[in-house]
Amino acid sequence: MNGQMFVESVRSEGLAHISYMVGHGGKAAVIDPRRDCREYIDIAHRYGAAITLIFETHRNEDYVVGSCELAHRTGAEIHHGRALDFRYGNPVKDGDRFDLGDLSLTVLETPGHTFESISLVLTDTSMGSEPVGVFTGDALFIGDVGRTDFFPGREEEVAGLLYDSIFGKLLPLGDHVILYPGHGAGSVCGKGMAPRDFSTIGYERKHNAVLRMTERRDFVKFKASEFHYKPPYFMMMEKLNLEGAAPLLSGIHAPRPLSVAEFSAAAQRGAVVLDTRSPEAFAGAFIPGSLSVPLSMVPAMAGYYLPYDKDILLVVNDDVADVNTAVRYLRRLGYDRVTGYLAGGMWEWETNGLAYDRIPAVHVEELVRRIRAGDKFTLLDVRGADEVKDGRLPGSLHVYVGELPARLDDIPADRPITTFCESGSRGIIAASILKRNGFKAVEDSLGSMAACRATGCPIV
Amino acid sequence: MNGQMFVESVRSEGLAHISYMVGHGGKAAVIDPRRDCREYIDIAHRYGAAITLIFETHRNEDYVVGSCELAHRTGAEIHHGRALDFRYGNPVKDGDRFDLGDLSLTVLETPGHTFESISLVLTDTSMGSEPVGVFTGDALFIGDVGRTDFFPGREEEVAGLLYDSIFGKLLPLGDHVILYPGHGAGSVCGKGMAPRDFSTIGYERKHNAVLRMTERRDFVKFKASEFHYKPPYFMMMEKLNLEGAAPLLSGIHAPRPLSVAEFSAAAQRGAVVLDTRSPEAFAGAFIPGSLSVPLSMVPAMAGYYLPYDKDILLVVNDDVADVNTAVRYLRRLGYDRVTGYLAGGMWEWETNGLAYDRIPAVHVEELVRRIRAGDKFTLLDVRGADEVKDGRLPGSLHVYVGELPARLDDIPADRPITTFCESGSRGIIAASILKRNGFKAVEDSLGSMAACRATGCPIV
Amino acid sequence: MNGQMFVESVRSEGLAHISYMVGHGGKAAVIDPRRDCREYIDIAHRYGAAITLIFETHRNEDYVVGSCELAHRTGAEIHHGRALDFRYGNPVKDGDRFDLGDLSLTVLETPGHTFESISLVLTDTSMGSEPVGVFTGDALFIGDVGRTDFFPGREEEVAGLLYDSIFGKLLPLGDHVILYPGHGAGSVCGKGMAPRDFSTIGYERKHNAVLRMTERRDFVKFKASEFHYKPPYFMMMEKLNLEGAAPLLSGIHAPRPLSVAEFSAAAQRGAVVLDTRSPEAFAGAFIPGSLSVPLSMVPAMAGYYLPYDKDILLVVNDDVADVNTAVRYLRRLGYDRVTGYLAGGMWEWETNGLAYDRIPAVHVEELVRRIRAGDKFTLLDVRGADEVKDGRLPGSLHVYVGELPARLDDIPADRPITTFCESGSRGIIAASILKRNGFKAVEDSLGSMAACRATGCPIV
Amino acid sequence: MNGQMFVESVRSEGLAHISYMVGHGGKAAVIDPRRDCREYIDIAHRYGAAITLIFETHRNEDYVVGSCELAHRTGAEIHHGRALDFRYGNPVKDGDRFDLGDLSLTVLETPGHTFESISLVLTDTSMGSEPVGVFTGDALFIGDVGRTDFFPGREEEVAGLLYDSIFGKLLPLGDHVILYPGHGAGSVCGKGMAPRDFSTIGYERKHNAVLRMTERRDFVKFKASEFHYKPPYFMMMEKLNLEGAAPLLSGIHAPRPLSVAEFSAAAQRGAVVLDTRSPEAFAGAFIPGSLSVPLSMVPAMAGYYLPYDKDILLVVNDDVADVNTAVRYLRRLGYDRVTGYLAGGMWEWETNGLAYDRIPAVHVEELVRRIRAGDKFTLLDVRGADEVKDGRLPGSLHVYVGELPARLDDIPADRPITTFCESGSRGIIAASILKRNGFKAVEDSLGSMAACRATGCPIV
Repeated sequence: MNGQMFVESVRSEGLAHISYMVGHGGKAAVIDPRRDCREYIDIAHRYGAAITLIFETHRNEDYVVGSCELAHRTGAEIHHGRALDFRYGNPVKDGDRFDLGDLSLTVLETPGHTFESISLVLTDTSMGSEPVGVFTGDALFIGDVGRTDFFPGREEEVAGLLYDSIFGKLLPLGDHVILYPGHGAGSVCGKGMAPRDFSTIGYERKHNAVLRMTERRDFVKFKASEFHYKPPYFMMMEKLNLEGAAPLLSGIHAPRPLSVAEFSAAAQRGAVVLDTRSPEAFAGAFIPGSLSVPLSMVPAMAGYYLPYDKDILLVVNDDVADVNTAVRYLRRLGYDRVTGYLAGGMWEWETNGLAYDRIPAVHVEELVRRIRAGDKFTLLDVRGADEVKDGRLPGSLHVYVGELPARLDDIPADRPITTFCESGSRGIIAASILKRNGFKAVEDSLGSMAACRATGCPIV
Repeated sequence: MNGQMFVESVRSEGLAHISYMVGHGGKAAVIDPRRDCREYIDIAHRYGAAITLIFETHRNEDYVVGSCELAHRTGAEIHHGRALDFRYGNPVKDGDRFDLGDLSLTVLETPGHTFESISLVLTDTSMGSEPVGVFTGDALFIGDVGRTDFFPGREEEVAGLLYDSIFGKLLPLGDHVILYPGHGAGSVCGKGMAPRDFSTIGYERKHNAVLRMTERRDFVKFKASEFHYKPPYFMMMEKLNLEGAAPLLSGIHAPRPLSVAEFSAAAQRGAVVLDTRSPEAFAGAFIPGSLSVPLSMVPAMAGYYLPYDKDILLVVNDDVADVNTAVRYLRRLGYDRVTGYLAGGMWEWETNGLAYDRIPAVHVEELVRRIRAGDKFTLLDVRGADEVKDGRLPGSLHVYVGELPARLDDIPADRPITTFCESGSRGIIAASILKRNGFKAVEDSLGSMAACRATGCPIV
Repeated sequence: MNGQMFVESVRSEGLAHISYMVGHGGKAAVIDPRRDCREYIDIAHRYGAAITLIFETHRNEDYVVGSCELAHRTGAEIHHGRALDFRYGNPVKDGDRFDLGDLSLTVLETPGHTFESISLVLTDTSMGSEPVGVFTGDALFIGDVGRTDFFPGREEEVAGLLYDSIFGKLLPLGDHVILYPGHGAGSVCGKGMAPRDFSTIGYERKHNAVLRMTERRDFVKFKASEFHYKPPYFMMMEKLNLEGAAPLLSGIHAPRPLSVAEFSAAAQRGAVVLDTRSPEAFAGAFIPGSLSVPLSMVPAMAGYYLPYDKDILLVVNDDVADVNTAVRYLRRLGYDRVTGYLAGGMWEWETNGLAYDRIPAVHVEELVRRIRAGDKFTLLDVRGADEVKDGRLPGSLHVYVGELPARLDDIPADRPITTFCESGSRGIIAASILKRNGFKAVEDSLGSMAACRATGCPIV
Repeated sequence: MNGQMFVESVRSEGLAHISYMVGHGGKAAVIDPRRDCREYIDIAHRYGAAITLIFETHRNEDYVVGSCELAHRTGAEIHHGRALDFRYGNPVKDGDRFDLGDLSLTVLETPGHTFESISLVLTDTSMGSEPVGVFTGDALFIGDVGRTDFFPGREEEVAGLLYDSIFGKLLPLGDHVILYPGHGAGSVCGKGMAPRDFSTIGYERKHNAVLRMTERRDFVKFKASEFHYKPPYFMMMEKLNLEGAAPLLSGIHAPRPLSVAEFSAAAQRGAVVLDTRSPEAFAGAFIPGSLSVPLSMVPAMAGYYLPYDKDILLVVNDDVADVNTAVRYLRRLGYDRVTGYLAGGMWEWETNGLAYDRIPAVHVEELVRRIRAGDKFTLLDVRGADEVKDGRLPGSLHVYVGELPARLDDIPADRPITTFCESGSRGIIAASILKRNGFKAVEDSLGSMAACRATGCPIV
C-alpha cells in the first residue's frame, strides 16, 4: 500500500472555507467536505486511497456541507458531534478513535461555536500516542477564534464553552501540534484571521490576540459583546445541513447560454439577474434591474440578496470561465436554480440595441470637495458597524450593505446618492440595489475609505 | 453568442468508438455518447454551448450508450431511429431536421447494420442546403462498411438494405461531403477500417474496398458470407441500450485499494480476479486463478469472459493510472461491480509470501525446432477463423480465444500446451484460462504468427 | 509503432491562425507553428510521435512563426518555399515529398498571397496516390481566398498567380479533398471566411463566393481592387520571419506583479500602459494615459499601436488568467518586453487613492436624439472603409481606428467627441487614444452600428 | 496584491526530494528547486507572484539543482551558503534576511551535512519576530538527521557540527516551529525518515530517535559510525551543482520513438538499453543486454550504473506515460542523452521476431527447499550491508547491488545464481547485470526477504 501519510487542504475561495483530507494505508478521511467534491476523489486517487470516513466538525452555517454528496459517490461513512440531532450520519463522542493506516483521528468535543462542535486530533501511532496535529473546525482559527453569536440570549454560556474548549482541551495538546482550522482569512466566520494557512498550537498561544485573554471572564466578556452580521441564507444552510437535504449535483443542470431575447424573456418571467462583473464594468454599463455582486464577493455576499425560489440569470465578464466559477460559488450556498447566462455578455446586449444604465465613479477628492462645498447629496456608507466606528466621512449616512434592501425607506429619495464603503466594491452592490429600487441619481465612490486614508481625507 | 461552428470527435480507445459533438450558436448535439460523458460537458463549456440534443445512430451493441446519463446531467433530449421500440427517447424519421444555430442535422434513415440505423446529415444553412458532412454511425466506415450479421437467417436482406443505404443515400450526398463514422480502426464492428479518422464520401467512393463492389448482388453476397465473432456481452449491451437501463455513474463507487489479506478474502468469496498487466508481466508472475486481459484489450475482449453477477477485482501494473483506465473500460461494457484492486500490485502479493505462478515465453524459433523435432505438445492457435485461414503453423490446434472457455474439452490434457496467436497477447489470455482450469504445463509464444512471418517460419 | 494517422489543428484565438500537426508511424510534421509551441510537443507525446518536420506555407506577416523555437526544442528540420531567401531552413519545390509513416506530404507551389507560398498535399500512401487533404496556408480559405495586396504596383500580377494556384492546382486535386487552411474566421488575412473549420475542395468550389469568379479576369479584377488595412507591426513580423530572429521564449521572463507605486514609477520611466479589460470596465474607470485594447482584440489590434522599443505594462481584469493570455497574445506579435502588470488591478489603484478617469457610454438612441437636435459634437466613426461604405450615421467623421494616432489633427478639438464603430469595442480603443492625446470630452457609443441596425436608426 | 501567505511543497518522487515555495505580497522564493522547474512557475502564477529569490540549503549531491534553470526563466537571484566557493549566485551568512511581503526568510548557518549548509527561518513579520517555520535542508529531517559521511577522515568533526547546528540553533527556535526538511521518506540521504511530510520542531524533539541522543558525544559517535552507500553519480552532481553547469532544458530534445530496426542499430552503436518495466515484466521477457531498473527505482539506483558519455535508450511499459517519467527522473540526475525509446515496447520487439530472454521467478519456499536439499547454486544477496546484518538466508553470498558491476569476479561462474534482496526488485537489477555479463542461469526471488519473514523461512 502507498506508504505516504498525507494531509491535504482544499480551500474554497471567497468562503475561505478549508476542508481537509487525511490518509494513510489506502484509506482517507475528509473533514468538512464541500458540496463540489470531485477534488477529494482526485486526491484520493492520487494517493491510491479510498475515502472511507467523512467528519463534520459542526453543523456548518455558511455553506452546504458535501457529506451526503461525497458519501453517495464513495460509500464513506459520515460522523458528527452528538449534541445535535442530525438526520443522517453517526454521532461521535470524546475519545472515539478512527484509524487510517498508522494515522488516527480522535474525537475531542470542543463546543462553543456550536454545541455539537468537535475537533479531531491527528496522531501518528507509529511514533507514539502524542498528537501531531489537530483539526479545530470553527473553534480555533489562525489569529482568531470562532463566533459565539448563534444562540441569542446564551452568548455568555457559549463563549464560556468555547473558552473551556480552547484553554482546557486544545492548548493542552501541546505547542508542537500543527493547527488545521476550518476557515482562513476572508471568512464571514471570524474577522481577525491571519492570511496564512500554517500555524501551530504554540504559535497561536503566543500570537493569537484573542488567546491573550487568558482569564475566562475577559474572554467571555469579549466574545459575548462581539458583533457579527448574519446573512439570511444561513437559515437555509442550517436546515440543509441538519437534514442532509441538498440535492445531488449530478442532476442539476449547468446554466444555458441565452440569447438576448431568451434572456430578456426569462428576466421578465421573474428571474433574478445577477451581474458578477467587476465594479468598474458594472459602473460602465449594466442591465437595468440587475443586481451587482462582483464575482469574488459572491460567496460572502450573494446570500444576503438571492432568493431560493426563483431562477437566477447571470451576466459575467467571461462566458467560459466566470459562469463556472459563479455556479460553483452559488451551489455552495445552495442556489441550484442558476438556469441561464447572457451569452456573449454585455456586448450582445449592447449590440442588440437594448437599454443599459451606468453608475458614475466618484473619486474621494471630488467627494471631499462636495462635502466642503456643502453640496446636497447623500453619502451612503454601507460598511459594517465595526468599520464605521473606526472612522467615517463627515455627514455620511450609515446603512450596512447587507441590510440595505430592508432599510430603503431610510434613504432620502430627493437627492443624489453616492455609495461608499472600504474600497467601492460593496458600494457597487449598494448602488445596484438602489437603482433596482427606483433611485435615479446614484454614484459609487471607487476607492472609498481606503483612498481617503491614502490621500488624507478628513475622517471623523 | 460564440460564433464558431464546431465538430469535435471523442474517441473511446479499445472500442475504437467515435462519438461526435456538433454545435453552433450556443447549442450542441452529441451523437452516440459514451457513458462516461464528462468530456462532452467540458467541450460544450469550452464553446459556451448547452447540450440540447442527443442522437443515437442505432442501438449500439458493443458498449453502453451514454444517452440517459448525459440527458440526466444536461436535460438534453434523446433521439433515435423509429424502427426499434426503444423504452426512452424520441423516434425520428427521414427528413427530420434539428437546428443548432446556423448548422442543421437532418435524419437520413440508413438501415442495414441494424433496422433502426440512421445517419445525420450536417448542413451549414448559412451557405445553402448542400451538406458539408455526414455522421454515418455503423453504416459506412473509413475503409469498410458495417457488419450485417446480427439477424441470423436474414443476412441477405440486411446486406441489401445496407447496399441501398450506402449507394442510394450516402454516396449521392456528394464527393465533397466529410465522413464522420461511428468507429475507427480497431473496432470489433468491422475489420477493414483504415487507421485514419479523416475522409470524405468521395475518397471512400474511390478507395473503400467494399464500395468497389458496386453491383448490389456482389455486395450482398460478400456481406452475407462475411464472418464476425459476437462476444457474449453484446446481449447485455442490447438489453441495456434498448431499455436505457444502465445505472447512473454518480452512485457507482470506485474500486477500493485492498490489502493482500482483503484481496484474498474477496477472491475466496467468489470475486473474479482480472489481471490487466502486460503479457510479459503476467508471464513473469501471476496470482493463481486470475484471468489475464492486458489493459488495452479489455474493451474488445473482457466481454467474452466476465460475468455481470460477480464482483471483479483488479491486478494492475500501476495503481494510480491503470485502475482508472480499467474501470472506465469496464463501465463502458456495463461492468459496474469492480469493487477492489490489489493495492501495491504484485509487489505486495510477492512480499507477503503468497504463491504465484508463471507462464514461460517461447520464441517461434524454439517452436519451429520443437515441431521439427516432433516433440509431443499442443500448439494451440487461438486466432480468429479468418486469420487461421490465411496461414498457420503445421500441427496446430485451432480454438478461437473467445470460445476457449466453452471448448476446454477439446484440449488434450496429457501434454504441454503452447498458446499461439498473432502476437502473443491473445495467447496470454488463453494461457490464463487454461491455468484457471487446471492445465499445468502452459507456455505462450510471445511474437507468435507475426514473428513467424518476420523470421520465415514454415507456414501452411 | 502507434498505428493511428492523425491531423490535429491548433488554433490561435484572435489571430484566427490555424496551425496543423500531421503524423503517423512515430513521426509528425507541424505546419506553420506558432511561437508558443508547447502544445505541439504535447500532441506529439500523446501520439507517441517525434516532431521531425516543420513547414511554413509562406513567410507569415501577422504573427511570429515558431519554426526556430520548435526546431530548437525538438531538432526538427524546417522547410519553406524557395521563392524567398529565408535566412534559415531549407527551400522546397513542387513535387518534393516527405513521408510520415504511411502518410506523405507533397509540396505544391501555390504563389499569389506571396511568391513563396506553398501548399502541402496529404496522401495516405497505403491507399494509393490520390490526396485525402491539402494544407493551403493563405492561398485558399473556407469561404475566402488569400490577400493579394502585399506587393504594391504588382496587384494584378499576384492576383493572377493566386488564380492560377487555386484554379490550376488546388481545385484539380478533387472535390473529395479535405481543406486545411491557415486561417479561420476572424483573421485579418481575409474578410469573408466562414466561422467553420471543416470543409473540402468540393464544398468550396460550390460555395466559396470568390471561387464563383471562374474567369481569370474577373478574379484578378476583384482581388486587385480589394482593400485591406495593413497594421504597422507586419513589418516587424516580416523581418523576424525572414531572418528567424525571434528570441527563444525560455529566456523571456513573465511580467512581474507590480504594486501601485512600482507601476506608477515604471510608467513614468516611459513604459506603455496597456489596459486589456472590457470596454465597459475601461469606460467605468481607467488610468489616465493608458491605452485600451480589450483582451480578445489584442491579437488583431495591438500591433497598430504598441512600440517594440519600450516596456509594456498591463492592466487586466483578472490577474491570474488574463496576464497569461495577454502575454501569449503579445509574444505572438513579437512583443517581448511585457515587464509588469498592476497587481490587484484597478482595485489597488483606486484604493490607493490615485486618479482615474472615465468614458461615459452613449446609447444610440441618445446619439440619434443629439443628431436630430443638432447638438454640436463630433461623431467619430472609426470603422474600416468597407464598413463605412455600407452605411453610416449622418454627420459622422470617418477615421479608421488603426490610423487614428496619425490623424489626430483631423479631429476638431473644440467640441465633445463620441467614438463609434460596429459594436463600441474599437470605439473604446479610439476613445483611449483621444484621451491620451489630450482630448477632454470623450464618450463611446456602446452598441454602435449594430445597435443602430437593431433599433432602426437613420442610416445613410 | 494577493494577500495570502503561502508555503507550497513540490516533491520529486523517487528522490524523495522536497523543494519549497514561499511567498506573499506578489513575491516568492524557491528553496532547492529541481531542474524541471515549470511547477514553480505555475504555482507563482496561481498566487500572482513573481519568483524573485532562489535559495540552496547546500550543494546538493543527489540531484541536479535547478537554480540556474529557474533563474534563467524568471530572473530570480540565487543565494547559498558562503562556506563553499560556488561559481554562480551569492553567498549568504547568519542573519541575512530576505523579505517577501510580510513574510521573511532569515539565514541560519547549520553546517554538518556539508560545511556550507544553511537553514532558512520563516517569520510572519506582521505578528512579531518569532519564527513560524524553518526550512532545514539536509540538516534535520522528519524522523532522522542528515548524513555526515561526505568528508572521509573528518566524520567526527562534521557530526559535531551537525550536533551543534541542531541542538544549538534549530531546536532553540521553539517547539511551535513548523519543520520543512529537504527530503522525506525514501531518500538516499537518510534511512530513518518518517513517511510523513508534516512535523514541528517540538514533535521531532520528542519523537525523532536520533535527537534522543542529547549528549554531543553519543550523537557524534552514532553519526560517525553510520554507514551509507554513495552512488558514483554523486560526483557528477557535485560538479554540476558547484559550477552551475547543467545545460538548459529547452535545448534538450525528448527521446524519439524508434522502430525495432532503429533501436537495434542504435544499441549496436553503443547506446545503453535501460528497461524500466516492472520486475515481473522484465522477468517475463527482456532484450538481451539490457539493464533493468524498474521505473520507481530509477531516481535512487540508475546513478549507480548509467554512464554520462553514452546515449541511453529506453524500454518501457507504456510509451506515452513512462517515457516522460523516465526522462524526468534521468534529467534530475543529469542524464541528458536519452535519445530514443522502443516504440510499441516489447510487443514490437517480439512480433518482429527478435530474440528475447527471461529470468524465472523463484518463490522463497522453493529457495528453502533447495537450500535444505543442498542444491548447488549461488544465492546472491544484493541488499545493503545494514540489511544483511539484520538477518540473511543460510549460505548466501553478499554483494551490494550498487557494487555488483565492480565485483563480478566474486560470483562463481560455474553454477546457477538466484538473486535475492528485500522484495525482488533490486534482485531483478542484479539479475540483468549478471545476464549482461554472460552469466547464463540466473533467476530472481520475487518476494525475497520480505516473503521469508512472512512465511517463516529459517533466517540466520
